Amino acid sequence: MAAPTTGTRWVYDFIEGDRDQRALLGGKGAGIAEMTRVLGPGRVPAGFTVTTAACVSYLGNGGHVPDGLDEQVDEALARLEEQAGKRLGDPEDPLLVSVRSGARDSMPGMLDTVLNLGLNDASVDGLAARTGNARFAWDSYRRLVQMFGNVVRGVPGDVFEDEIKRIKMEYGATLDTDLDAEALRDLTMRFRRLYDFPTDPREQLEQAIRAVFDSWNGERAKSYRRINRIPEDWGTAVNVQQMVFGNKGATSGSGVAFTRDEITGAPEPSGDFLPDAQGEDVVSGVRNTRDLADLADWMPEVHTELLEVLRTLERHYKDMQDVEFTVEDGRLYLLQTRSAKRPAQAAVRFAVDAVQEGLLTPAEAIATVDAGALDALLHPTFDPGSNPPVLAHGVAASPGAAKGTIVFTAEAAVLAATEGRDVILVRPFTEAEDVAGFFAAKGVLTSEGGKASHAALVARGMGRPAVTGAAVLDIDLHAHEVRCDGTVLHEGDFIALDGTAGIVTVEDVPLVQPEIDERFETLLGWCDGLSRLQVRANADTPEDARRAHAFGATGIGLCRTEHMFMAADRQMKMRAMIMADDEAGRRDALDTLLPLQQRDFEGLFEEMAGLPVTIRLLDPPLHEFMPDQYEVREQLTRARLEWTWDLPELEELLQRMRALEEANPMLGTRGVRLGLLHPEVYEMQARAIARAFRAVRDRTGAAPLLEIMIPLVALEAELELARGRVVSTAREEGLEAGRDFAVGTMIELPRACLIADSIADHADFFSFGTNDLTQTTLGLSRDDIEGRILPTYYEEGLLERSPFETVDVDGVGELVRIACERGRRRHPDLETGVCGEHGGDPDSIRFFHAAGLDYVSCSPFRVPIARVAAAQAAIAGAR
Amino acid sequence: MAAPTTGTRWVYDFIEGDRDQRALLGGKGAGIAEMTRVLGPGRVPAGFTVTTAACVSYLGNGGHVPDGLDEQVDEALARLEEQAGKRLGDPEDPLLVSVRSGARDSMPGMLDTVLNLGLNDASVDGLAARTGNARFAWDSYRRLVQMFGNVVRGVPGDVFEDEIKRIKMEYGATLDTDLDAEALRDLTMRFRRLYDFPTDPREQLEQAIRAVFDSWNGERAKSYRRINRIPEDWGTAVNVQQMVFGNKGATSGSGVAFTRDEITGAPEPSGDFLPDAQGEDVVSGVRNTRDLADLADWMPEVHTELLEVLRTLERHYKDMQDVEFTVEDGRLYLLQTRSAKRPAQAAVRFAVDAVQEGLLTPAEAIATVDAGALDALLHPTFDPGSNPPVLAHGVAASPGAAKGTIVFTAEAAVLAATEGRDVILVRPFTEAEDVAGFFAAKGVLTSEGGKASHAALVARGMGRPAVTGAAVLDIDLHAHEVRCDGTVLHEGDFIALDGTAGIVTVEDVPLVQPEIDERFETLLGWCDGLSRLQVRANADTPEDARRAHAFGATGIGLCRTEHMFMAADRQMKMRAMIMADDEAGRRDALDTLLPLQQRDFEGLFEEMAGLPVTIRLLDPPLHEFMPDQYEVREQLTRARLEWTWDLPELEELLQRMRALEEANPMLGTRGVRLGLLHPEVYEMQARAIARAFRAVRDRTGAAPLLEIMIPLVALEAELELARGRVVSTAREEGLEAGRDFAVGTMIELPRACLIADSIADHADFFSFGTNDLTQTTLGLSRDDIEGRILPTYYEEGLLERSPFETVDVDGVGELVRIACERGRRRHPDLETGVCGEHGGDPDSIRFFHAAGLDYVSCSPFRVPIARVAAAQAAIAGAR
Repeated sequence: MAAPTTGTRWVYDFIEGDRDQRALLGGKGAGIAEMTRVLGPGRVPAGFTVTTAACVSYLGNGGHVPDGLDEQVDEALARLEEQAGKRLGDPEDPLLVSVRSGARDSMPGMLDTVLNLGLNDASVDGLAARTGNARFAWDSYRRLVQMFGNVVRGVPGDVFEDEIKRIKMEYGATLDTDLDAEALRDLTMRFRRLYDFPTDPREQLEQAIRAVFDSWNGERAKSYRRINRIPEDWGTAVNVQQMVFGNKGATSGSGVAFTRDEITGAPEPSGDFLPDAQGEDVVSGVRNTRDLADLADWMPEVHTELLEVLRTLERHYKDMQDVEFTVEDGRLYLLQTRSAKRPAQAAVRFAVDAVQEGLLTPAEAIATVDAGALDALLHPTFDPGSNPPVLAHGVAASPGAAKGTIVFTAEAAVLAATEGRDVILVRPFTEAEDVAGFFAAKGVLTSEGGKASHAALVARGMGRPAVTGAAVLDIDLHAHEVRCDGTVLHEGDFIALDGTAGIVTVEDVPLVQPEIDERFETLLGWCDGLSRLQVRANADTPEDARRAHAFGATGIGLCRTEHMFMAADRQMKMRAMIMADDEAGRRDALDTLLPLQQRDFEGLFEEMAGLPVTIRLLDPPLHEFMPDQYEVREQLTRARLEWTWDLPELEELLQRMRALEEANPMLGTRGVRLGLLHPEVYEMQARAIARAFRAVRDRTGAAPLLEIMIPLVALEAELELARGRVVSTAREEGLEAGRDFAVGTMIELPRACLIADSIADHADFFSFGTNDLTQTTLGLSRDDIEGRILPTYYEEGLLERSPFETVDVDGVGELVRIACERGRRRHPDLETGVCGEHGGDPDSIRFFHAAGLDYVSCSPFRVPIARVAAAQAAIAGAR
Repeated sequence: MAAPTTGTRWVYDFIEGDRDQRALLGGKGAGIAEMTRVLGPGRVPAGFTVTTAACVSYLGNGGHVPDGLDEQVDEALARLEEQAGKRLGDPEDPLLVSVRSGARDSMPGMLDTVLNLGLNDASVDGLAARTGNARFAWDSYRRLVQMFGNVVRGVPGDVFEDEIKRIKMEYGATLDTDLDAEALRDLTMRFRRLYDFPTDPREQLEQAIRAVFDSWNGERAKSYRRINRIPEDWGTAVNVQQMVFGNKGATSGSGVAFTRDEITGAPEPSGDFLPDAQGEDVVSGVRNTRDLADLADWMPEVHTELLEVLRTLERHYKDMQDVEFTVEDGRLYLLQTRSAKRPAQAAVRFAVDAVQEGLLTPAEAIATVDAGALDALLHPTFDPGSNPPVLAHGVAASPGAAKGTIVFTAEAAVLAATEGRDVILVRPFTEAEDVAGFFAAKGVLTSEGGKASHAALVARGMGRPAVTGAAVLDIDLHAHEVRCDGTVLHEGDFIALDGTAGIVTVEDVPLVQPEIDERFETLLGWCDGLSRLQVRANADTPEDARRAHAFGATGIGLCRTEHMFMAADRQMKMRAMIMADDEAGRRDALDTLLPLQQRDFEGLFEEMAGLPVTIRLLDPPLHEFMPDQYEVREQLTRARLEWTWDLPELEELLQRMRALEEANPMLGTRGVRLGLLHPEVYEMQARAIARAFRAVRDRTGAAPLLEIMIPLVALEAELELARGRVVSTAREEGLEAGRDFAVGTMIELPRACLIADSIADHADFFSFGTNDLTQTTLGLSRDDIEGRILPTYYEEGLLERSPFETVDVDGVGELVRIACERGRRRHPDLETGVCGEHGGDPDSIRFFHAAGLDYVSCSPFRVPIARVAAAQAAIAGAR
């Protein structure tokens, strides 16, 4: 490749750029340039950026820096020295600089910073003299030699650490800070012997720049780019910036400041500072920092100036800012500004205040909120003031806090609920037959499983707080006790858990109840006005529906009728249905379930008058309603050995269970397959729905917009047949499809997406079941891979997050796009939505908006989050 | 809709059409017209066709026949009467006609035929007088009234049957044929009272034509069209044809004839006939038919004429024909001709003879062969002459016949094999740990499961005959006996099975061994010259590879390395690997497996020098190598109750098994996931492959074209990482990717198809694993749905055949097309193939050819079939 002409600009002073030049100057370079531009020269330590183009040229040209680069660096350095009034390597008053990489997008961990560049055996004395602090000077030099060796020359970090350990022994020092100037000089000289440290500062700078360039092709960077899909040919920029020191004495200091209160979002700046200290001292917490207000006493003019700067930055960036500042010899420098991380309540307050102050439009304000973080406002939490002793940490599986006494079985939980006792269901893991216990308990605690375990999924679906995988707990169901580090808890003992934080305690912590306050309501109102996507809720009970309504859901996108069969009293009826030998037997059992199911639907329909309610017909495999097969087998083995009376009964049970057993139940007899195999099941459900609809309409004069949904369709003919049966059963009950209700299908198999055109011939709506669609598209069983495969995949950089949390856009998303396109081609009025966990995930919602869906449906507790995310998606889409 | 102008032709005489007019005249009408055209007028009973367009007009116009139709029918009828010299309804000598539907594509069962139309109370006497056979005349009339009532008027069939039963009682008749003319007259009159039978023959005809039109919208027809995707707007034609009678006396008769020997294909016509009989008497087998050769004695001129007709038809249709003929009063009529059904050997002989006779080109000859039926030539069979008593019928799960003594366990089979005894493995069902027994046994028999059961799949993969699901057998593993209808068989008793027919017997039937004879070789040679698709074989052992080679495979498309671990001695080593606590332990166990695996590969490579060999790295979940968990649990329960010494060992085993257990193993820790989780497994395999490759190359100077395949890839990064590791391990062993071997991936998940472009960046080839792709695309577990869901689906018309036998073109096929297109876009030289069961299915092969794949790979025994199918696909594609 020919070297570019010498006319190319490879180097830009900070004062020349702005934030739109990320491609050329990198993210960091553009950011510093922008801040310099906003605050004017002198408020940001000066410096310059070597462009990404220089890096690309260097890497493409066999490691030769492009013509003109060295000269341009020399010139920029000269301008920097001129402005700082100091020279690099000056033995009297040396200019020190930092060298940092900065790609177009942030690539954390790609290259560590090299600080204090410009020090050598001569200039270190100059620094000591100018600062009057020999220890500081030698510590700075020691750090340079260490960082340079490690970062630029690749000397392993532990080589330096070993040297530090040795010198501490020799000098009898315990902490690093116990080492005095003499010891640090000794240490620096030992470091110097570990490799060939360049004492010429210009040479230091050149090598550091090359090292940053080379780091673009390091293994860590490549792996990072692979995960984050960053193109190989972007290259990185290099930022060279004057060092400033807050530890030069009484008129120096460092701090961090927020443009508003960092906890509440109230419109007063907050922060901490430390006189005579560097930034890292403020952050590390080694010394007790002082409140930002005290700065007014210490250096009033700096304080005034800082407040002015904060106002300027917030106005310019249109967001609450978190800035780092240093005062060197009474002069204020701003080192960094970024959008402030803030708790949910502060985020809401800032957004609403900013609109009311005229700082932001509602759309701009909504964009400042991290929708996912709003979760914290929607569940009870441990009182933030309390700091209870932690019994165990586990996975924060379902948000919210709960407390009560321990029970070990679903039955005990149900009993407790009828007696009005608050209990926590504690089990090694949970299964389908424990679901009744979830209803009854205040919270769920397991020692096994993670975020995608049965316990976590069911708990989130029902809004019950849960901590899972608290592996330190030894939960012994036989002994009815929980053992943990010598503590033994028994059934009936008190326990509390925080599913937002993943914490378990035995202390009776006060809980703080959530509420959607006036500001949050205001924000959500703005969101609804800007969204295109509607937000519905997944709700299986009238109680869920009420909550969903209160949280602003515009309908029920998924009512899982199987949850209605999980309640303790119904599970036995369901089991009787499954155990029946023939259709007549099944019909008898179903007849007893029909009025119960009808009553459930009536409650739901009354709650949702005038709004859409999508009811999914029975979906899961029948064996989910059966007891644990291992337990039955064990009982049977015992019964055989002991010739007990229940042998024949157990044998029959086991035989039926074996007949229902499936190698891969996820891909087995469920959904519409079950409905076609045993038509009487869907018939009963259709009848119960229709009767409930008529009863509610007759009683109240109002009715929901009823949608009946047929799950797991793979073949056009499956839907055609099942739909026909539902329609004719409903007609027997006096309802007409089209007039009184719609019939649609869940799109949750790849084949359904591919033949969406012919499926659309028989469907009034599509509801994407992206949970199952993810499982089948990726061939990944959620139950199986989470604990075994995903940790390795995260570690190896193969995946960034679970495809069950955020929709896999390239695979599952592609199928959703194909299905929408093909479905609408045949049926332009087709209603499309998504139900399942992704419906409450902000990143997924952004995709669903772009794919053109009509609504998302999620757990009631996620509805406000989804409303914000839907608005953000619309706002981002409009830009 | 406006009625069409009267100028439209709605009716065509048979003599006017030909076989290209299926759209207008329907399949049957065009077929009769073609035969009329070929044989000249007078040889085919005359008649006319009412067009499909008339039907479409009728249905679109509220059931009004189009203007001009009645007149055109009148005119055609007049021409027919003119030609026949008889008039419809003539009381002296009536013309009788049949009325039959005939859509563009055959729709069997849509409408039954109406025969003898034209009879009434007057003309029946004329017919009796002319034939001198009153019984015949009244039986004909009785049949007309019955058929007309049932087919045209919808009177339920059992109403007539009840009447027949009654009259037989009254007349003391046992069989229908016991009823004399008087009884039949009585019966006819009773039928007449059941509904309003139109005595006017023209009215009969008009109503019959309308009934055929209406039948297009009947439920049966709609369901048939749904299954077969026949457009709703095609409509059906109606064929009206003069009746001829072979039962008019000594110079009449009926018969069927084949243009060549129907069993062997030898070039002499064969067939049967019966003097003074109708066609149905020949077919029903009630009377003993006479050989076609006897016709020469009986009516030499008719015999000569028939032979001439047979030659003409075969020459015209360019295929062996099966014709129905009737002789009425010494005059030969041809009623139907169609391609003759023929056994495999006859098909091969005809194809080869026909080319050598100059009748057909090789391409035309190949097209006459039913590729799937060739299976019968490739396996041993029961001697066709033997007719052993059947002990049990079961599913014809894996073709071929086998005999030997009964064993009940894989261990016993292995022991027998080492002692040189032939055994049949008999089990209720089989599991992974039984696979060693498949190797050792001559055949496999189970009482549970069907064509997709584990036993069937493994047996087919290994070419072992198998009968599965022989439900009548009570296989008692505890008692070591098989009980069946009072017979009790014990271990060591003789048994024989025919997996082609699904038959089990205890008789020592002689077996006929298969061979690819000279004619078959000739045919296959022509096929290879015409195909584009290559045919490889799935082979796991040198023995398989030899067989594949002998059957003409051009390489190994799939070597499943896990089968190498299934042998009895290795299973324990594999188990030790799985039971190891850490990587070191696993490596120790793997080290003992490496030389064994290397030896396997060496055998394979020597056999396939110069040909491609695709080796798939370990794919199935580890728990497949473990013993049955229920058994271990039962042992453990016993051990606990009895405090036996092996308690801790069993507990550890169970714990490890529980850790490996998966809810949906198909979607769990397998394929590349396993390879990334335990890199040492793939590393061992890559090392064994590389060492074997070098050893063979050094020893023989030749080597295969090595392809290493990574299974179950869903993410680009999975392949990138696994490929990198394989390449670097191979490099340690002296092999270079690109130079010595290729690395590719199995495309078996929907996501892999959708992101095939980025996957192609890291793959030299794609091999479609359509088994797993079918499971994930349709969300159907092969193990689970076959016995439970598919029977219902076939019955309800939802599916025509299993998507695991013939590839699902709309779903799975669409993904294959997408993957090929996206993969080639990025990587134009990408090699593409398919392995798995579909690779040996002719219909699927047609699709894979059209999709542009480079090869299919199938079981060695299917290779000749696939070669024929590949040629047929190319021939069909070229047309």
